[in-house]
Formats: sequence, structure tokens, C-alpha cells
Amino acid sequence: MSRRFFTLLLGIGLTCCLLLSMTATADAMEVQTPKAMGIADVLAASTPSDWRPLEPENTLYVEMATGRVIIELAPAFAPIHVANVKALAREHYFDGLAIIRVQENYVVQWGDPNGEKPDLSRKIEHAHPTLPAEFDHPIPVNMPFTLLPDGDVYAQTVGFSDGFPLARDKSNGRMWLIHSYGMVGAGRGNTADSGGGTELYVVIGQAPRHLDRNCTLFGRVIQGMELLSSLPRGTGPMGFFAKPEENIPIISIRVAADVPLNEQSPLEILRSDTPLFLQYIEARRNRNEDWFLNKAGHIDICNIPIPVRKKN
Amino acid sequence: MSRRFFTLLLGIGLTCCLLLSMTATADAMEVQTPKAMGIADVLAASTPSDWRPLEPENTLYVEMATGRVIIELAPAFAPIHVANVKALAREHYFDGLAIIRVQENYVVQWGDPNGEKPDLSRKIEHAHPTLPAEFDHPIPVNMPFTLLPDGDVYAQTVGFSDGFPLARDKSNGRMWLIHSYGMVGAGRGNTADSGGGTELYVVIGQAPRHLDRNCTLFGRVIQGMELLSSLPRGTGPMGFFAKPEENIPIISIRVAADVPLNEQSPLEILRSDTPLFLQYIEARRNRNEDWFLNKAGHIDICNIPIPVRKKN
Repeated sequence: MSRRFFTLLLGIGLTCCLLLSMTATADAMEVQTPKAMGIADVLAASTPSDWRPLEPENTLYVEMATGRVIIELAPAFAPIHVANVKALAREHYFDGLAIIRVQENYVVQWGDPNGEKPDLSRKIEHAHPTLPAEFDHPIPVNMPFTLLPDGDVYAQTVGFSDGFPLARDKSNGRMWLIHSYGMVGAGRGNTADSGGGTELYVVIGQAPRHLDRNCTLFGRVIQGMELLSSLPRGTGPMGFFAKPEENIPIISIRVAADVPLNEQSPLEILRSDTPLFLQYIEARRNRNEDWFLNKAGHIDICNIPIPVRKKN
Repeated sequence: MSRRFFTLLLGIGLTCCLLLSMTATADAMEVQTPKAMGIADVLAASTPSDWRPLEPENTLYVEMATGRVIIELAPAFAPIHVANVKALAREHYFDGLAIIRVQENYVVQWGDPNGEKPDLSRKIEHAHPTLPAEFDHPIPVNMPFTLLPDGDVYAQTVGFSDGFPLARDKSNGRMWLIHSYGMVGAGRGNTADSGGGTELYVVIGQAPRHLDRNCTLFGRVIQGMELLSSLPRGTGPMGFFAKPEENIPIISIRVAADVPLNEQSPLEILRSDTPLFLQYIEARRNRNEDWFLNKAGHIDICNIPIPVRKKN
């Protein structure tokens, strides 16, 4: 009956696939044509130059009792928010605050549980309480962009730039980050400039693309998603925790560059501007592993997790 | 600072939105044009005929220590699997088995933890151990189908039939259920006919559309998804639990019709073949709630949860 335990084994669907012990053992000369390669084959055929290091200055560590959630920041797409969230982290704004909302198939959100109580709420020392929106931007000249071949339900074109899922509309020359699983954004009130990074959210369900261009996305979780997605759901309206004691403490949020070297988590991320990345996309569009009997022949932008591995 | 707690409040994204106390209070004459209605407005304007009862004979109750997960079966799309899973439930095949796999952003799977040990594995009395695949079917004449207007990355056309997300390809006359969040399928080995319903899975992450036409889908979770999606992730390969003691017991799986009336969970489901359902889709394509500053103007099939409410 061993077949049972192989059931669905090949349908790997991780958003953050941390390849803990991966080594590039395949000789490039031995590699079959790209169409015959499975996902593991493509990654095994990668060379060191197919990977880029995670930059400590563009990385947040969210420390919880259960472990560390690692966020890669996206200064190319939300420079104002990235700078402000880093400033908030550096003045220890988040330390001791909490996850206050876990909404099923939607978002985990954290901030100040006393945000509604001016006398008790956490004070901001140097950072900004609110910011102008960074929902979208003009498309820069010469920004790398790996176009996906199968289109998108929501945007004119979609693809990856620096590993971030990106929509582009040539008719108005705008681009914006996409609400894929694990993306991190700044909550806001009813006006565009009412957010600023004091209250953050992470997508934990089906990509809520209707939030695209409605919130400023400024990063993505690249390790530790399971620490957020497996949290108990809030029983209050919209998944807010009904009782204060249900809030889940955030021990601290640090810029990785500020953490002692021996406490850092060195990671590498698959580059999205290489020929190998095109092979990776193709291996996800048409799954060549034996288990798959029908190949999809198409791929949605939110179904392409960016591989991450420990840096040797 | 009350704005903080309204952050993202309007971005409702539940797949299974159980409207516990909803009543149709709006006078249809007072309703604004559909384009101006929010999701709550549309549902409040519904009449009793916009809803259908959940049929106890086509419903499974999965009983866990944490509560009941309710699955609506889809005999129109997988008659052989539905009949066999019901037969398995009725011979108490599942009682005392366990959830053996929780893979992040992918699936929860249950079955026999001793499936690999012939001497210890659960015996099937009357049902079938394996079945022919029901990956897709010919499109029947006159089957209701509510076409979505914005296309799909994977299939020629997509829409809803009896509340189930469905793809159709007119070029070959085939239709198949879609792997949206909460859909329930039968695991299998490497051959198409190696599954049969003894090992089942539920989608708990971004819709894994590459599984479409690779597994037989036969139902969807309409209540209790949070009991599955918030489970701790398995630390073994592919999210299987590394140690037997980590498996999560399934107390029982029953066909609802076999459960005493006072222990049943009477629910109603929004019909997908009505003018009101078209208004509901439009309210999700273009969110009219004040919070939304940019309307998407498009909707993905997997971003349209089917509303469910308690039956009065």
C-alpha cells in the first residue's frame, strides 16, 4: 500500500520552498531539453550565479514565540514605505505589539492592540505615522522584467522583477506589485494616505487581487509563512481577535543588518532574470514529473513561488 | 486612532462566508442599480428563492476534536467517487483514521496512517478500494452554467454550475471542476485509476490549478475550513507528519442524512443560476464599498466564494 503515501507527492505547491540542502550536482551537459525537466531538475541544474543573496539591509526579522518570519523588502517598488517600516523597526516601534487579526483565507495583520486608545497607544518617535500611497509607479526604463506567457485575469501583463510579482499596463505606463500569497502590505483607512506601515498585513489565502492598487505592498515573506498561516483564526468581525488575550505577541521586528551576524539567517533567492528562471517557469507550466497525467500548459503569476535556500 | 481598526475592514475575502444571522430586510424597490451595490447589499436584497438548501444526502460531516467540517458533495461531476465516499463513510471506514499531511499553501490530506502496513491497515468491507478517474466529463446538454466575463489563465471558459467552480472547453466538449480553495479531491498514485476516495485532500492555499484534470474533485468544504487551514504544518517531506503522534485524529465521517435531525447543521447556499448571483459577481468584480479606491474590474473564478448561511 505504499502508493498511498506517494499520493500527490509530486504536486509540490509551496510558496516558500526553502531548499535546505540543495546542491548543484547536475552537469549542464547532461541536462535534457528544458521541456523534459521537472522542477527539482531545473533547480539542481542551477549554478551559483542563478542565485542572489538576501540583502540584510532589505530584510526584516519578525520574531515570535514560535520562531522567525523573514520578510524581503521591495525598495524598488515602495521606497517610502520601506524606509518608514525600517525606521519604525529601528526605533523598536513594533516590539511587544501583536498580531490582532487572522482572517481565514485572507490576511494576518499586526499592529498596536491599543491603537484605539490614545493614552495607551504606542508612540512614534522618529518615523512617520502616515505616508503618501505607493499603490503603483511609472514603469522605469530598463527595469528587468520576466514576462509570463499566459496572461492574467486582472492586468494587461504580469511577470517578475527582482523576484517580486509585478503587473504592468503599457497603456498608461504604470506598474504595481501583485497580492500573491505571502506578500506584505501596509493597512490603511478609507483614504489613500491613511496608512504608513504601523499596521501591516500578510496574504495567507487565495491571492486577493482586488486589493491590487488599493494598498501599498512593500515586501514578501520568504521564510516562516507557516508560522502565520497556521495561527488560529480570529472569531471577531473580519477575523480580529475578539478578546485582547487572544492577540499573539510580536516579540520584535528588526532590520536584519542590525542583528549580530551569528544570529542572522543567511539566505539566497533564485534570480528571476536568468535563462534558468525561464526553465523554472516552464517546469511549472508543464509538469514533467511522472505523477502528472495532464499538463496544464499555463501558469498563473500567483502559482510561481520563488525558490529560497540557505546560503552556504 | 479608530481608523486603525477599520483598516482593510471592507476587504472581505472569506471563501466560506457563513452569514449566521442574515435576513433579507431590503425592499427590492429601494435597491440601487447593481453597479452601486456592495456585496452585503446584494446579499441583503436576496429573497428565499435565491438560496437552496444543502441536501443531507449530498453532505459529509467530518468530525474532529475541534469541531465539524462540512463538505458538499458534487454527484453531477463525480458520481462514482461520491457514491464510493458515501459508501466508505457508511461502513465507518474513516472513523478513527487521521489527518496525516498538512502542506503549507497547498493541501490537508487524511486517510489511514497505517496504509503502508497491510497487517494493520483499515479493511474495506463493501466500498471500492480504487475507481476509474473522473477528471473531466462531456458537457451535458442544458446544464446550468453561469459564465464569468473575465476569462481564465488556464481554461477556455470558466463559471459556476450548482455553486461549483467549473471549466469548460468547447473545442473538445469537456468540462471539469476547478481546484479552488476548499475543494475536496481524491488522492491517487501515479496511475489515473489508483485513487478511490480512501485518501482525501482539501485545498488550503493558492488554487493549485495544475492539479485540474489530474485528480478527481468531488466536493467542497462549505463550513469549517478554518479547522483545517489553521492546523500545524507537517514537518516531513511534502507536509506529511514526521511522527505518528503528530497525526490529527478524524473522529468520524458521516453522511449528514444518517445523523439524527437534531445533530444536523442545516445550511443554505446561494444559488448560482439567478440574476442575483450575477449581481453578486459584479459586486466582487467592482467593489463599491467606500474603502476601495481602485476597482479591479475583473474577477478570477477562485476569488468568488459561494455564500452559505444557516437555514432558519
